[in-house]
Amino acid sequence: NIPQLSHKVQVIEKILSKNNAMADEIRDEWDKHNITCFNLMSSPGSGKTTTLENLSDKLPYKFAVIEGDLETSRDAERLRDKGIWSFQLQTGRACHLDAGMVKKALPEFPYEDVEIAFIENVGNLVCPASYDVGAHYNIVFVSVPEGDDKIEKYPVMFRKADLVVITKCDMVEYFDFDIDRAIESARKLKPDVPVILLNNKNGEGLDKLIEWIKSKRGEYVLSNTK
Amino acid sequence: NIPQLSHKVQVIEKILSKNNAMADEIRDEWDKHNITCFNLMSSPGSGKTTTLENLSDKLPYKFAVIEGDLETSRDAERLRDKGIWSFQLQTGRACHLDAGMVKKALPEFPYEDVEIAFIENVGNLVCPASYDVGAHYNIVFVSVPEGDDKIEKYPVMFRKADLVVITKCDMVEYFDFDIDRAIESARKLKPDVPVILLNNKNGEGLDKLIEWIKSKRGEYVLSNTK
Repeated sequence: NIPQLSHKVQVIEKILSKNNAMADEIRDEWDKHNITCFNLMSSPGSGKTTTLENLSDKLPYKFAVIEGDLETSRDAERLRDKGIWSFQLQTGRACHLDAGMVKKALPEFPYEDVEIAFIENVGNLVCPASYDVGAHYNIVFVSVPEGDDKIEKYPVMFRKADLVVITKCDMVEYFDFDIDRAIESARKLKPDVPVILLNNKNGEGLDKLIEWIKSKRGEYVLSNTK
Repeated sequence: NIPQLSHKVQVIEKILSKNNAMADEIRDEWDKHNITCFNLMSSPGSGKTTTLENLSDKLPYKFAVIEGDLETSRDAERLRDKGIWSFQLQTGRACHLDAGMVKKALPEFPYEDVEIAFIENVGNLVCPASYDVGAHYNIVFVSVPEGDDKIEKYPVMFRKADLVVITKCDMVEYFDFDIDRAIESARKLKPDVPVILLNNKNGEGLDKLIEWIKSKRGEYVLSNTK
């Protein structure tokens, strides 16, 4: 049934183009305040929130976080306990954040107090990749217990990555995860993508993540003040 | 913009109702051949394929598997290596299986040779919950490394579970996962849902999973031959 299918495609394209326009508005807002925004995406339980907790003491920039989950405010609360400003978006049944949802967090956003905004997307290795949420850079996490084949199996997500972070690296002896194969898979999908190995238990790799964020922050400030 | 929103909702409802009708057709097909069908859902890397591999020697029924992934045929190949008939569906960008996709596997399905069909859905703790794929029962997996908060954070999925399987239970000392809290969270969403603790490394819990499948197979045969 071609007419019906093309109608469905039209509706989806309309939704996406409306979303993209709104994402551009969000980026304008960040740019006005010289804030660099990173979108964090991964499967459920890959360690996004834990990484943000651990960055709170170490990152040489003030940051705020917009959290996405279907239900609960647990992640926002965890970050507030660390003294980080955070806003919890609850998506209900929705499997990803979109620009319209992120916009809802902006009226309260502490623009004057921070240099970096993190958007922690809904834990889902598929759908969030298709929705621009108004960030400047995408960080995709994959954890060792998930297995190294996940990169090949979820290519849409890894093609969007400006940085891949492999988490729970202390667990590599217990699971079927070959670090070299993971890096190779990631770079087949996105040539030269940087990959950082992170162990949130002892902080190993956190310095590399901070260096990467600093370099992107530097690039951003340069381009935004031109 | 209310008219546009209601238009979007109408389109989604049309898609879902078409899907449900097709799912009923699939169930009719199983029923005609006295096959019980189980839909396996979870985050990426929770151990669905490994569980099926381990069932191949132990389950006292012949079974076949319909596999769903965005890309690669790795899971179907793993099962074929174990002598299990399997068909790989590649969804491309789609975040879930739907009845239309499952239907594509049916012309080749070995109806006469098996008593049980497993559908291994795309690894995603959100979207697959909303699409009836023509199964009789849903099994939802959650692995210890993901953290016990995932049940509360993905309620739509756990409300659909006829059985919850907690995998990678040998790893409980390394991760923030409280088994009692997980069971309590699951039963808040779905009262009395059975929960099985599984360790695919040493096979602990596999006998309980087999007992559950046997009981459902028994119930099914009884109701299907009435």
